[in-house]
Amino acid sequence: MTDIPSQHLERAVRELSRLPGIGRKTAMRLALHLLRRDRKEIQAFADSIVGMADGVRYCHVCHNISDQDTCPICANPARDHTTVCVVETVEDVIAIEATNQYRGVYHVLGGVISPIDAVGPQDLEIQSLVERVAAEVPQEIILALSPTMEGDTTAYYIYRKLQPTPARITTIARGIAQNDQLHYADELTLGRSILDRHPFTI
Amino acid sequence: MTDIPSQHLERAVRELSRLPGIGRKTAMRLALHLLRRDRKEIQAFADSIVGMADGVRYCHVCHNISDQDTCPICANPARDHTTVCVVETVEDVIAIEATNQYRGVYHVLGGVISPIDAVGPQDLEIQSLVERVAAEVPQEIILALSPTMEGDTTAYYIYRKLQPTPARITTIARGIAQNDQLHYADELTLGRSILDRHPFTI
Repeated sequence: MTDIPSQHLERAVRELSRLPGIGRKTAMRLALHLLRRDRKEIQAFADSIVGMADGVRYCHVCHNISDQDTCPICANPARDHTTVCVVETVEDVIAIEATNQYRGVYHVLGGVISPIDAVGPQDLEIQSLVERVAAEVPQEIILALSPTMEGDTTAYYIYRKLQPTPARITTIARGIAQNDQLHYADELTLGRSILDRHPFTI
Repeated sequence: MTDIPSQHLERAVRELSRLPGIGRKTAMRLALHLLRRDRKEIQAFADSIVGMADGVRYCHVCHNISDQDTCPICANPARDHTTVCVVETVEDVIAIEATNQYRGVYHVLGGVISPIDAVGPQDLEIQSLVERVAAEVPQEIILALSPTMEGDTTAYYIYRKLQPTPARITTIARGIAQNDQLHYADELTLGRSILDRHPFTI
């Protein structure tokens, strides 16, 4: 793209294009959209970002994002505190909450073990999980990590680290996604879904 | 989407999702991405947006974005000031500049006439164009508006407003886009490209 006729615009475009999935063209569109707004609205936009950085805290129990020391899920006595679902990120918590299928609590790792990205176990909330499990002794620990090499590696690492524990360690089901065509599924997924078959229910 | 566990995060997500083309899920991804950055980087991001709003000015000649009273294009004596290209937005200036095919100057309308969006001629830089043409008497005025109903209406309105003028009023060519399949082109475009045929050159 050619020169932008304003350094102020150029700087905003550069910052916006550093966001994930935002290319330079999209950043330009966003910047010019913002420019068309009232000065007050633009200030509110910027304040919301800085306010987030200043205001957001992390739950000291599960490391989910929170405004308090303890997140609303951990603080909720109606949740099942004997079931801990281990996830990679806050997005995963929000995604699972949106299903309305889970009443337990969470433990947010903050990522997965990935040597390529120089992320080791010590960079994640794994030690705190081990200590939490030792202290709380939950009945079930669900490893809800992505079915990727990094996710599998992390799940295996955590499984080993938690031994010995009386808790049941489970993992989320892998299989054919709802509304997917069977013959389009990759072999690993299809094979796994056959091995993990279960009684038919209506 | 379910409740976000932090009001600060919620506020940032709401602001981000007001940007064009950014849905709530993407806004959440952007907010969490920003959260992972240093406090200083987040401040720089916010400052760049506010700095843009405070710093950006508009060229008093062509209404392009600029840091000075006159934009770099209008201030450039090497440009052909006898040819004025009329465009809708700053994005269009940047897009045409990126082609390296145009050495004239611009006039940025700030939009097109659109009764549905309550945009009338008085909301656009049309009167200033009429005055500019009367004062500068350019040799050519290129109407480079989008080939939409609104663009065509605006072009016709400007054409009438500029009469009488000794300037040659032209419009950009419409036709089959480079690398497009002929038989996929719509009838209007294909018909126009046949009417506008010109001597074959190599």
